[in-house]
Amino acid sequence: MQEALAYLHERRAEHLGWAKELCRIPSISTQEQHKSDMRRAAEWVRDLCVTIGCDAEIHQTAGHPVVYAACCHAAGAPTYLAYGHLDVQPAGDLSLWDAGPFEPVVKDGWLFCRGAADNKGPLLVYLRAVQAWLETAGKLPINLKLLFEGEEEIGSPNLTEFVTQHKRLLDCDGVLISDTSMFQDGWPTITCGTRGICYKEVRLSGPKFDLHSGGHGGPVVNPANALARIIAALHDKQGRVAIPGFYDDVVEPTPEEREQMAALPRDEQQYAADLGVPGFAGEQGWSVEELRSVRPTCDVNGIYGGYTDPGASTVIPALAGAKISMRLVPNQVAEDVGRKFEHAVRSRCPGGVRCEILDHAMAQPYVAPRAWPAMPVAERALREAFEHEVAFIREGGSLPILTLFKQELDADSLLMGLASPNCNAHGPNEKVSIADLDHGAAAVVRLLAHLSG
Amino acid sequence: MQEALAYLHERRAEHLGWAKELCRIPSISTQEQHKSDMRRAAEWVRDLCVTIGCDAEIHQTAGHPVVYAACCHAAGAPTYLAYGHLDVQPAGDLSLWDAGPFEPVVKDGWLFCRGAADNKGPLLVYLRAVQAWLETAGKLPINLKLLFEGEEEIGSPNLTEFVTQHKRLLDCDGVLISDTSMFQDGWPTITCGTRGICYKEVRLSGPKFDLHSGGHGGPVVNPANALARIIAALHDKQGRVAIPGFYDDVVEPTPEEREQMAALPRDEQQYAADLGVPGFAGEQGWSVEELRSVRPTCDVNGIYGGYTDPGASTVIPALAGAKISMRLVPNQVAEDVGRKFEHAVRSRCPGGVRCEILDHAMAQPYVAPRAWPAMPVAERALREAFEHEVAFIREGGSLPILTLFKQELDADSLLMGLASPNCNAHGPNEKVSIADLDHGAAAVVRLLAHLSG
Repeated sequence: MQEALAYLHERRAEHLGWAKELCRIPSISTQEQHKSDMRRAAEWVRDLCVTIGCDAEIHQTAGHPVVYAACCHAAGAPTYLAYGHLDVQPAGDLSLWDAGPFEPVVKDGWLFCRGAADNKGPLLVYLRAVQAWLETAGKLPINLKLLFEGEEEIGSPNLTEFVTQHKRLLDCDGVLISDTSMFQDGWPTITCGTRGICYKEVRLSGPKFDLHSGGHGGPVVNPANALARIIAALHDKQGRVAIPGFYDDVVEPTPEEREQMAALPRDEQQYAADLGVPGFAGEQGWSVEELRSVRPTCDVNGIYGGYTDPGASTVIPALAGAKISMRLVPNQVAEDVGRKFEHAVRSRCPGGVRCEILDHAMAQPYVAPRAWPAMPVAERALREAFEHEVAFIREGGSLPILTLFKQELDADSLLMGLASPNCNAHGPNEKVSIADLDHGAAAVVRLLAHLSG
Repeated sequence: MQEALAYLHERRAEHLGWAKELCRIPSISTQEQHKSDMRRAAEWVRDLCVTIGCDAEIHQTAGHPVVYAACCHAAGAPTYLAYGHLDVQPAGDLSLWDAGPFEPVVKDGWLFCRGAADNKGPLLVYLRAVQAWLETAGKLPINLKLLFEGEEEIGSPNLTEFVTQHKRLLDCDGVLISDTSMFQDGWPTITCGTRGICYKEVRLSGPKFDLHSGGHGGPVVNPANALARIIAALHDKQGRVAIPGFYDDVVEPTPEEREQMAALPRDEQQYAADLGVPGFAGEQGWSVEELRSVRPTCDVNGIYGGYTDPGASTVIPALAGAKISMRLVPNQVAEDVGRKFEHAVRSRCPGGVRCEILDHAMAQPYVAPRAWPAMPVAERALREAFEHEVAFIREGGSLPILTLFKQELDADSLLMGLASPNCNAHGPNEKVSIADLDHGAAAVVRLLAHLSG
């Protein structure tokens, strides 16, 4: 293991080059024009897996391709499955980026690029560790399978079918994932749970075209005003989600868990400054940390309607819409919450406009069993590699694949995040700490050894 | 006069050509890239005025130019000022147009083009009438001045200064305007009043960039959700505008006026079908016709924030905004309503987001004196030309210049609309009835004669 760690250390510059190369590919899964880039990213990773000594192949799905690789030569040892995703969020407003969103820039120990943190930099630490073991010991201490998908950012619509149809191929004792955030920069973190998501789009249509707001304003129901009323009614004055039945299945964290969360050192003022917000709010009675991890939400992710170019135009919009997602916690069920959302929206839609609701994504919330023996093993590997105690947290984001692996493979997941809490995933100037990636790769080298015991 | 009317009749095809030529110029005043088109439209009208025998000149303002023309050789006769505007609304969604928005198309007696109805077709009837009189009688029966501006669609920001600085030039006994709608197709109409407008843009900013809604959703105040709550609170459950003090200065129409409005034959079902709406709503206790003319409104004209491209992106928007205009009735004062709006919005803005409010346009409501002697004269000219009784209505749109002419020139305005109620002004496939334009030109020929008496 020491030789593998030394090898890893020597190859740091080369491994940073891998991350840069992969980041250059604009693999935006939600945009049709980047379909060939998704293919390119899959081929790039497949080729890398082969180069370092794995068996690897691309599987086409109904959507973007999946890459499967394996290095399974440790008879009798346990088998783990490392998962990552090759796709990224759209770049958003280009004017907010200091460099091009797909031009990797290294500055002050950070690698800046769309996808650097979510998830290209972290997914590569598994390949770095595999290479280190194979180049030094000739084989891995355990059996490792690797699965890289291309549709995580759009809710993994085709992964279920792939996993269901390849249960034997993917059979494993547990899943290793680095697609979450660290508690603080440089602080190794195990995420014990993630929120689910239910993502819908509400479209209200009124007149068959934009109307002159002078000639027709008054009797005509304005779709944008109506949409605002529907959105406003999604919360009550205490900041709770006001969809009937929304909290029915919510399991509140235990007093012990709340104490543990409260005990971690947090600087809310610094957090507010990092985000640039003048303050926090949200559901009353819960801490900032709890609100972002163990409590459900209902957020507008996008809203549109009428004249939105510069200047003024006096129209009643023919159409107004909002993309709205709810983050879910155990034991909410995404489909059930979706039905309740639709019912609430439709029942609040006034006459004079028509309501259409589109589905975007669904994912169930997940909590790993605290008694799982792999947990303390992972804690040890992380503590040794980072030379720092490990934080146990819950994550606010969603990983739709966790319940998929649980249901189809009967496998729990170890979430060992390597992204900074300030990494700007999904925003401009996304970044990842190069040191955290180096420590992360070392932690995986150690983990592969410790899991074999 | 009969010779002038006969001349007009003969020249119909040529006059339609004028309208097509002017409509081809994409004179969109709110978009910087069309600045040269605004100049082109002004030069085109100036040249036409000179060609038919008027004195005409272009006046540069701080914004788009103004065209002034005159034909004042009727010593002792009254002097009237005809007003029109050369600018048009943006084309909007091009996919909704049957032809290019600036390609005039004649079909079934209609001229289709952006600006055909608002206001290029109607403004040209004054030049058609002037030409008819000059070519047949050698002079006009009264003194006529003509004023064509280029900023009506953006609230005439520079016309006040022009009129104030050219009071003597523009001195007149009354103003003639055809920039309103007819009560029904082919039904000549005098509009006795217009609504005012107060147009603002509310921008709420939260985080300094779009955030991952999973990682940060919960404690972070979402600007789009907050904006929706602010917009929702602009109306109460009875459909009344819920801005404190909003109705303080509203003068309700007299019972006689309400009876007169109710007496005009209206087909609400047809109106709903024309607009494509499933029904009407609005402030309780008022008819559809009253809601669109004598009652004030508060409408979202545009709303934006977050991810609005196809597909889904899970962000908390850094910014959300809405363009919101209020239509005002006598005796509301735009500046006063604007202050009340700003106060209501700011007082309802939650902590956690910052609120910025931009000004777009202001115009006061206007009502012409019913006892004005020019009223029955105009009624006679319209009735003779259209061979149809004249409707007296109030208009829901705004003409910022009416109070300007009243205040600076002490002149009331005769609003003789020639646009169909279904002309789609500001929307796709804007159109004007060619017969209504022909009758309108004949009405102006008659009006010039009758006003001389």
